[in-house]
Amino acid sequence: MNLIIENATIITMSKKGTIKNGAIVIEHDAIIDVAKTSEIKRKYSRGYERINAENKVVTPGFVNTHQHAAMSLLRGYADDLPLQEWLEKWIWPLEKHMRSEDIYLGALLTAVESIMSGITTVNTMYHYAEKGNEAEAFAEAGLRGVIGHVCFSWRKEHDKKALEHLARNWHNAKNGLIRVSVDPHSPYTVDAEYMQELRKLTNELNEKYGSVSKPIIWHTHIAETEDEKEKIENTFNVKLEGGVFEYLDSLGVLGDDVIAAHCVALTPKDIQIMRKRNVKVSHNPVSNLKLASGISPVPQMLKNGITVSLGTDSPCSNNNTDMFYLMKTASLLHKGVSKNPTVMPAEQVLKMATINGAKALSWDMEIGSLEPGKKADLAIIDFKKPHLCPLYNEASHIVYAANPSDVETVVINGEIVMENRTLQKINIHKLMEKIEKTKECLLARLRE
Amino acid sequence: MNLIIENATIITMSKKGTIKNGAIVIEHDAIIDVAKTSEIKRKYSRGYERINAENKVVTPGFVNTHQHAAMSLLRGYADDLPLQEWLEKWIWPLEKHMRSEDIYLGALLTAVESIMSGITTVNTMYHYAEKGNEAEAFAEAGLRGVIGHVCFSWRKEHDKKALEHLARNWHNAKNGLIRVSVDPHSPYTVDAEYMQELRKLTNELNEKYGSVSKPIIWHTHIAETEDEKEKIENTFNVKLEGGVFEYLDSLGVLGDDVIAAHCVALTPKDIQIMRKRNVKVSHNPVSNLKLASGISPVPQMLKNGITVSLGTDSPCSNNNTDMFYLMKTASLLHKGVSKNPTVMPAEQVLKMATINGAKALSWDMEIGSLEPGKKADLAIIDFKKPHLCPLYNEASHIVYAANPSDVETVVINGEIVMENRTLQKINIHKLMEKIEKTKECLLARLRE
Repeated sequence: MNLIIENATIITMSKKGTIKNGAIVIEHDAIIDVAKTSEIKRKYSRGYERINAENKVVTPGFVNTHQHAAMSLLRGYADDLPLQEWLEKWIWPLEKHMRSEDIYLGALLTAVESIMSGITTVNTMYHYAEKGNEAEAFAEAGLRGVIGHVCFSWRKEHDKKALEHLARNWHNAKNGLIRVSVDPHSPYTVDAEYMQELRKLTNELNEKYGSVSKPIIWHTHIAETEDEKEKIENTFNVKLEGGVFEYLDSLGVLGDDVIAAHCVALTPKDIQIMRKRNVKVSHNPVSNLKLASGISPVPQMLKNGITVSLGTDSPCSNNNTDMFYLMKTASLLHKGVSKNPTVMPAEQVLKMATINGAKALSWDMEIGSLEPGKKADLAIIDFKKPHLCPLYNEASHIVYAANPSDVETVVINGEIVMENRTLQKINIHKLMEKIEKTKECLLARLRE
Repeated sequence: MNLIIENATIITMSKKGTIKNGAIVIEHDAIIDVAKTSEIKRKYSRGYERINAENKVVTPGFVNTHQHAAMSLLRGYADDLPLQEWLEKWIWPLEKHMRSEDIYLGALLTAVESIMSGITTVNTMYHYAEKGNEAEAFAEAGLRGVIGHVCFSWRKEHDKKALEHLARNWHNAKNGLIRVSVDPHSPYTVDAEYMQELRKLTNELNEKYGSVSKPIIWHTHIAETEDEKEKIENTFNVKLEGGVFEYLDSLGVLGDDVIAAHCVALTPKDIQIMRKRNVKVSHNPVSNLKLASGISPVPQMLKNGITVSLGTDSPCSNNNTDMFYLMKTASLLHKGVSKNPTVMPAEQVLKMATINGAKALSWDMEIGSLEPGKKADLAIIDFKKPHLCPLYNEASHIVYAANPSDVETVVINGEIVMENRTLQKINIHKLMEKIEKTKECLLARLRE
């Protein structure tokens, strides 16, 4: 599509900063120019559709770096329970009844909800199936995503087949909209040897299907809870000298293609290792608070120059994919806990939700900022709302005052996927009906 | 208005609990029946307007128990700063230029935003002026409110006149929509003698204008920060034996008509005193986190049977009046900090946002739950949204997944003040234009 979005305030997240009265020129899937509207009007005349974005703010689409998209089916099924009871008595028993078509539908619901929240890229980890999977759902909604298959020691052969199929069929598929990842579940469910095998397998898959500029990455949970070290020791009958990152580094599996979700329980040495190996972090404050997992030392990681991005985690531990709630909570939580109101200012949090998210997924060559040459992934936010009035500072309003309903239009890969809050590729009413039926089927199977 | 809302899931917050397929009958300003729709259809036939609330959830309107409504004019003016710099270099200098018509407009903006978030009652503390005040703004929007005048030691005579005028003109005004309060700013800005004078004055005003069932209450900030005790000691050159509540109790000013905002820095003895005096609490987690004031020991207060309600605080320390963000954050923060995911479950938080709010304002004879005899204050929430799908538990979705845009229709005192997201009494576009102009004038006066 050839499109000009004009008369907007544009938060570029590039060296150009924020452009008042700006315009963006999109040809096919890419941004070809970003400048003042007056300048764009002189340079480009006919052959473009136009969106008048007066009183609106354009940001790079948000990047949600940790999700289990299919789990939207369990949103609100069980809350406010002790972690083990929640998992063992509620989540896992119901999840066991999820079939591949359910995974597809759950992921489609999350894709829709993500787009409606201004999210244009989602990094998701779930069980991959050849038919009915998260990749299919994201592609259908027009959402950019990194689709992973989660690996456990108890199903190595299954995992390897799934990863091969996933990489072959989906890496860099759908006009580059979909990439894939290898997802060791965690250091306490994937043994040391398998962890190293998965690292080797990742390299092999990259040789076959990836490239330096479009890599197959690692997506994993690390140090989500305080007792993770103990869990590793008990499960694998080993003794860890230091923290969990120290252990993983001793296996030689860490690198700049690793995105580690949570990173709550860290030693100072862990942070040094993360920095040295250039590991990327997905900070999930909403899920961490709801599950009472602990509070990640984000200000310390930022001080050490580590790339920290933001993740909602699954809709069953959050319970939505609201990027605005996530940004505000990330900022406020660390101000409150560190007793320092200057920590994590709005501009920094917005960076975490956009360009840092892109870096965390090794995708910043193409997304995360609005500049010529990058893919056109963006959200147009309507600022003519009572709760965004008056206007002193756009970043402040986005992080501290806005909510998903303020996102008016979303463009991904140059395509308008939501216009004036209407999804362009999905009938959400039919989808919601199907989801309710799927829920009833799941509960019926559980009762059987 | 005679109105029946039918086919809804009704969260009554009364002994009747949640009624599926329920209906509410409203005559004039009051609820006269709440039951199954089938039963209501048999009992009431003609003479009612009807709202079909299928797939919708009706809750008591939310009660926001701590607000400075006029300060919406400063939303996003300054953030992420050390507290003293924020106040002294930014907020106070701009606030000084606010005139009474600005107070009126700022409060009107907050009233609109509140209604759009499902809030039907707001407890607000600000400078009262005879013309152009918060009471006028709330009445115009159709919002229920307790309007206070904030008192300081440095302006005793002004305060007393303002309080007399406020009570005479506004207590129980506008068909009972507006009540008033006496608002000693805090124990460090109101000296001991003045605090006791204000207690006496409150009794006198109640004798003239209030009643046991419709009292003029106290609204104040207590123990907002860790250093409040020190501030009192330094300001008034006194030595406090124990905590701040212990000090106030020694003055004989505490009672069940006191709503204390924040209550962050408490000693165990303070909590015992709060319980003994039946002081009500407005918990403001969003503001407390943003300003890094500390974390209120809410689970301990709840264990002690203290009435804890929820407050957004002003739109310049929050930065919106989003009751959904507030509920979720209250729940998640205390789960996270206490490392216990069972703390503050959804149902309890919803209670804090409704019936406990009403109790905190000594207004629970009339509002806070949906039952015959109470005033008709309610919110109809549309659940046919992707982020509220599938549905297992209504309370969970309201607290953990919904946002203000899900509130479709709001009734206050029997009157529909918002229908299908359209304000019925206020033109929000004109209001937003006026607010932007007011902001420009404020900045111009500051530069002069």
